[in-house]
Amino acid sequence: MHTSTNLPETLRHRRQKLAIRINFPAILWSGSSSPRNFLANTFPFRANSHFLYFAGIPLQNAAIRLEGGNLQLFIDDPHPSSALWHGEMPTREEIAANIGADDARPMAELENYLENAATLPVQDAATWTQQTQLLDRWVLPKNQLVGIDLELAKAIVCLRLTHDEAALVELRKTAAVSVEAHKAGMAATPQAKLEAEVRAAMEAVIMSQNMTTAYTSIVTVHGEVLHNGHYYNSLQPGDLLLADVGAETETGWAADITRTYPVSGKFSSTQRDIYDIVLAAHDACIENIAPGVEYAEIHLLAATVIAEGLVDLGILQGKPEDLVKMDLHALFFPHGIGHLLGLDVHDMEDLGDVAGYDEGRTRSDRFGLSYLRLNRPLRPGMLVTIEPGFYQVPAILNNPKTRSQYQYLVNWERLEQFADVRGIRIEDDVLVTETGREVLTADLPNQASAVEDLVVG
Amino acid sequence: MHTSTNLPETLRHRRQKLAIRINFPAILWSGSSSPRNFLANTFPFRANSHFLYFAGIPLQNAAIRLEGGNLQLFIDDPHPSSALWHGEMPTREEIAANIGADDARPMAELENYLENAATLPVQDAATWTQQTQLLDRWVLPKNQLVGIDLELAKAIVCLRLTHDEAALVELRKTAAVSVEAHKAGMAATPQAKLEAEVRAAMEAVIMSQNMTTAYTSIVTVHGEVLHNGHYYNSLQPGDLLLADVGAETETGWAADITRTYPVSGKFSSTQRDIYDIVLAAHDACIENIAPGVEYAEIHLLAATVIAEGLVDLGILQGKPEDLVKMDLHALFFPHGIGHLLGLDVHDMEDLGDVAGYDEGRTRSDRFGLSYLRLNRPLRPGMLVTIEPGFYQVPAILNNPKTRSQYQYLVNWERLEQFADVRGIRIEDDVLVTETGREVLTADLPNQASAVEDLVVG
Repeated sequence: MHTSTNLPETLRHRRQKLAIRINFPAILWSGSSSPRNFLANTFPFRANSHFLYFAGIPLQNAAIRLEGGNLQLFIDDPHPSSALWHGEMPTREEIAANIGADDARPMAELENYLENAATLPVQDAATWTQQTQLLDRWVLPKNQLVGIDLELAKAIVCLRLTHDEAALVELRKTAAVSVEAHKAGMAATPQAKLEAEVRAAMEAVIMSQNMTTAYTSIVTVHGEVLHNGHYYNSLQPGDLLLADVGAETETGWAADITRTYPVSGKFSSTQRDIYDIVLAAHDACIENIAPGVEYAEIHLLAATVIAEGLVDLGILQGKPEDLVKMDLHALFFPHGIGHLLGLDVHDMEDLGDVAGYDEGRTRSDRFGLSYLRLNRPLRPGMLVTIEPGFYQVPAILNNPKTRSQYQYLVNWERLEQFADVRGIRIEDDVLVTETGREVLTADLPNQASAVEDLVVG
Repeated sequence: MHTSTNLPETLRHRRQKLAIRINFPAILWSGSSSPRNFLANTFPFRANSHFLYFAGIPLQNAAIRLEGGNLQLFIDDPHPSSALWHGEMPTREEIAANIGADDARPMAELENYLENAATLPVQDAATWTQQTQLLDRWVLPKNQLVGIDLELAKAIVCLRLTHDEAALVELRKTAAVSVEAHKAGMAATPQAKLEAEVRAAMEAVIMSQNMTTAYTSIVTVHGEVLHNGHYYNSLQPGDLLLADVGAETETGWAADITRTYPVSGKFSSTQRDIYDIVLAAHDACIENIAPGVEYAEIHLLAATVIAEGLVDLGILQGKPEDLVKMDLHALFFPHGIGHLLGLDVHDMEDLGDVAGYDEGRTRSDRFGLSYLRLNRPLRPGMLVTIEPGFYQVPAILNNPKTRSQYQYLVNWERLEQFADVRGIRIEDDVLVTETGREVLTADLPNQASAVEDLVVG
């Protein structure tokens, strides 16, 4: 068990805040490990994030019941034979004391405490099956939330949208380790032959701190494949390497950082031109983060700065504002400017858009806005990513319809001169403060020349 | 796609062998990725091993139908929008050509080819739900196999029990990378403060080869906790570090190696005494591996050598053979001597004991034998682990009943002098050959002095 000394107090504050918002009990399951190729060979256990928020530690096969600020823990004492395989484990009473539970009972007694209880579905089948059976209604990760479950989701979103001090301690820790991982990746690049070697250098830093990755790392010379999960490409001197890697602490808090840098340690002039545009968008967005600002405006600001830059380079033709209205930026920047960050790398994405979209707002149909994961006014304590990018995605740019539709707005010949820029993204984690913002990942340089220096050492 | 040039031929041989053994069609699903904390944040995809055996490559959301030596592939072409997120993917026809499929169709057509088909349950819920719905009967990983599914399992076990040349190429590759990982772990130990740092050094080697771990690594100074999945302990000079780490190739083939070594680079005399007993058991077992030999006899040989050694040290009192009959060895060696190794680290353990136990054999009730995962006569082409150990498990040795029951057979005072030996295991991967055996992991030394040399460099 790894807990800060004030864990019970932190958890008490969280559930008192919840108690103000709901007048029914909530039961949150922790989940169980998912099998890999056979039942006993599991993926590493990851506790459900809502459970982690209110229970503080990643217990397996447990549940907590929250009502009126009280915390009941349901967990079985370890089977005597488990000591052989898993060592001595803390007892139910020890765990209860550790997290400040008011009451602790075996799992079998949970069935006596189900009345009027809301819950949120856990991802693994063993757990949502149990939730479904016990509550006698379908509790499925894929279903739309309704009734008190939806009310519970909204109440939890209110809490988790802004981070308390205990959360920030963890979020700073994971940001710091992620920064070190990126530095190690850059330093390993000149000697590396494969993407996989750079990934290994980065994840080794995270693993050596007894942390895990918060998501499948992207470490690729094909940054234009947005969710590239392969690492088999060889590194060529003219390539840009895009690394999107973040750590997760033992209690589940995530970081999310992207850097893009030249394998050779030196940007070509075309690479640097585009890099500086993406960085200008990144910096402009961060400078504008402040309480009350609409995150969607930050997205449009990035789009505008990118459009301006591409006009200056002669790749786009027209007025930047007009080009953004026509979604021209999205030809090269086809994703949102970022998302919430917390216990999940896309925080609370398990709740669909309940967390990301303010009450009454829904996703836009516009190509340039539909991927936006967050559409709320910013508030102090919110942690968001800012991650503008530029990509030459063949599926978008080679589409004959696109090419003819935009024949007068894109200078396709000029664009060909930038063929050595396949994908660039620069991503940092930004906390909204009372007076503006704080970049939690600021210790990792992002100026083109500073990045070059980190690669060549 | 990473395939050997003769993949279609390898796969054709395998399904021709299957066709001899069953007279009904078999449909094998590949599986889909399991969600971690939200639906889009998944664990790394691991295809079902039976699918991999007959399809050769880790396709997601696919199925193959085998009948009379024919291979039908069912997979959907990637959605056009997926190119943005996942890049250009091979088409169904390209995949079919790659693996030598006789026919290829979209998944939706699978429902027309279900008649009389047997299957084996895949671990992830999305897939076993689909299997259950399509076949209109429960296909659950936890259920006992019956009917044609059991017949199919037995036929596949016949094939997968002994490895063909294509499998051996992969198994040698993963063994070699695992050997390098262990060497890197040993070299990293003197500078490491935490178990996590040694684990990171080992897994970085595996990851840098674009491979994954075949199971959750064990890297611990508490080797007496058999399935220790924690890495937070600090390393002290007097500690032994037990590292049980194995790589898995991109097409799913596993290695499984354990070494135990002194953090300081120097065994204490008590540690070395016990280490040499475990090594003697290890060597005796390997020397006796040959076609026709019963694996259970190999287990009992290990038990006897360990009992002999402990008698020589004055820890046990009596005749070794008698002590083994009374399961005295199991106080210190409470697991089986090893298991099958192949596409799964416990090969085909998803089939229960259908693979591990010869027809008509069942698990023993004896404490000293019940954990034995393999009970068959050895045959050329079988790959097994040999992994004797010595552990001081508090849950076993501090049990008052045990202490009084064995008060004249264990010299408890003498045992106390070996308090610095908490857990030792030495594990190698051994292929049964026509004339005897070949140790696939022989490049990793296991003599006490050679291990010391690898630690101090």
